Amino acid sequence: MSIEKQGRQTWVFPAPPAILAGAAVAGPKEGGGALRADLDHIYPALSWDKKSFEQCEQAMQEKAASLALAKAGLQPQDIDIFFAGDLLNQITPSGFTARQLGAPFFGLFSACATAMEALSLAALCVASGAARHALALASSHTCTAERQFRYPNEYGSQKPPYAQHTATAAGAALVGEGQGAARICALTVGRVIDAQVCDPFQMGAAMAPAFADTVAAHLRELGLRPENYDLILSGDLGRDGCAIAGQLLARQGVDASATHFADCGLLLFQGADEVLAGGSGCGCAAAVGFGHILRRLASGELRRVLLCATGALLSPVANQQKESIPAICHAVALEGGNPHA
Amino acid sequence: MSIEKQGRQTWVFPAPPAILAGAAVAGPKEGGGALRADLDHIYPALSWDKKSFEQCEQAMQEKAASLALAKAGLQPQDIDIFFAGDLLNQITPSGFTARQLGAPFFGLFSACATAMEALSLAALCVASGAARHALALASSHTCTAERQFRYPNEYGSQKPPYAQHTATAAGAALVGEGQGAARICALTVGRVIDAQVCDPFQMGAAMAPAFADTVAAHLRELGLRPENYDLILSGDLGRDGCAIAGQLLARQGVDASATHFADCGLLLFQGADEVLAGGSGCGCAAAVGFGHILRRLASGELRRVLLCATGALLSPVANQQKESIPAICHAVALEGGNPHA
Repeated sequence: MSIEKQGRQTWVFPAPPAILAGAAVAGPKEGGGALRADLDHIYPALSWDKKSFEQCEQAMQEKAASLALAKAGLQPQDIDIFFAGDLLNQITPSGFTARQLGAPFFGLFSACATAMEALSLAALCVASGAARHALALASSHTCTAERQFRYPNEYGSQKPPYAQHTATAAGAALVGEGQGAARICALTVGRVIDAQVCDPFQMGAAMAPAFADTVAAHLRELGLRPENYDLILSGDLGRDGCAIAGQLLARQGVDASATHFADCGLLLFQGADEVLAGGSGCGCAAAVGFGHILRRLASGELRRVLLCATGALLSPVANQQKESIPAICHAVALEGGNPHA
Repeated sequence: MSIEKQGRQTWVFPAPPAILAGAAVAGPKEGGGALRADLDHIYPALSWDKKSFEQCEQAMQEKAASLALAKAGLQPQDIDIFFAGDLLNQITPSGFTARQLGAPFFGLFSACATAMEALSLAALCVASGAARHALALASSHTCTAERQFRYPNEYGSQKPPYAQHTATAAGAALVGEGQGAARICALTVGRVIDAQVCDPFQMGAAMAPAFADTVAAHLRELGLRPENYDLILSGDLGRDGCAIAGQLLARQGVDASATHFADCGLLLFQGADEVLAGGSGCGCAAAVGFGHILRRLASGELRRVLLCATGALLSPVANQQKESIPAICHAVALEGGNPHA
């Protein structure tokens, strides 16, 4: 048995499964940012030879999956189990991608935390011996998500400055035994935390308490301090969410100044066109984590990273019914470089 | 290591985890059917002291979870990991139930196959030693689902005779080590199968090929024949879907007359008011499986059951975009009674 539970929410892998290969693809705005060199494919527009934005999102998923498989020298039939999710109702892009891959499929939903839910379940399956190769995948598209959750982008409606921009991106990680770009050493599964935020543009504030709760639980249950990580990365808190998270972590006795904190939603759009408070969407943590971060772990530039994805469980129906927006955050601890160095 | 993979889609547990306790709750129409004695709680109306049908669905989930916990003599803090899903966009009832339980939570979506996705992941976590207790939960409510996928029931719009009625029901299963109502011996994870059905009322025809594919894979990969099971149960194919499934199984060389086949969607509404072609919804397989079937396994009336849940991955948006309705089916093999008898 190579899975140990520590505390209420954390699992540790004494023989860590590896991320054998990762891939990240993204849209034009993301491709114009500072991370462009870490994207395996950049689409020049928000739609291309497809009939709908939804088909474009599905195509991004299929591209990310096929790139990750190719890098690992594997075929779709080598996938023992496929975990995927996205933001769309009934996670249609993931369902259609699963149809194309033909692999045993478990569909997931935890909003923008889905990439780490998929990676966690893939790691559990490989660590337990249930799978030799497990594929984790997540995506988002600004046009499909904004239309579903708020207004179609084409309306040109104004957004408050604390609103975030849904990333057009997909990321895939192929988990297996052996050597890879990074090792999955531990994971902390989030609880649903409700900060009673009701504003559907205020995602950062809704998610910050879930991020602080999961990071604090991770450090406490493993007896770690922030400085044990080179980098603690939130999924998509954005500028305002990050500020709130810092205050909440301090209240839980976590000194956020002791190490480097960063946010996928800010990283992905650094140097890109204006996106208000930053990026969001399932594809944000997936593309930054399985692209940019994985490369830095593989090169040895980063040694230990806590990759957290934060999801605001926003439902337009529940929101219209005056319900609050609960949130969840899942964290995965990654180690890079040569374990014996 | 107590998980073995057999073939492409099947996992076997040499030391099977147990369903320590199950619970089923349902609405008035379901409560008027032949399975009423196997329902732990029957709601006298489709809405009660809640402000919305969505809140009623959430209350059903919470009731099923608390009943399963109580039967097993456990508390919410004993849940190591919680797997749940439902039919609503962003699986809001499950998210809110997770908020109330406070357990580490992974949200799932595979439409009406979600109950068996949750049970499968719970079994994998317990069999691997990752969890001592894992809770699997799924629900549906006719008023929330019909409004979202088709028309509000209040419109009174006519349905074709092959349409099914979304069950108002929830089912919970608490998986752990030791003795319980049943043992989880094996599971077969479904692939997404697309029969190119585009009619959102034609769920049975959309799901039948996925059911036939998963059952055939299960039998083939384990070298079993239908008669090795006392009962092979589909989730909610309904009357028309069952007829199609029988033909498809025959084409795959599976003799459906060799054992007893039944359908949760037909069982749940047997003796109840008219529901056209039968029941459907995540709550259908959950309530019948974790209520009626579990009791018969515990009593020894049934010895070996293959419990399959079938999900039509219907999206109103994809449907309006002229996409087909792909489907998936997950199967879990349960054994009851005394293993040494």
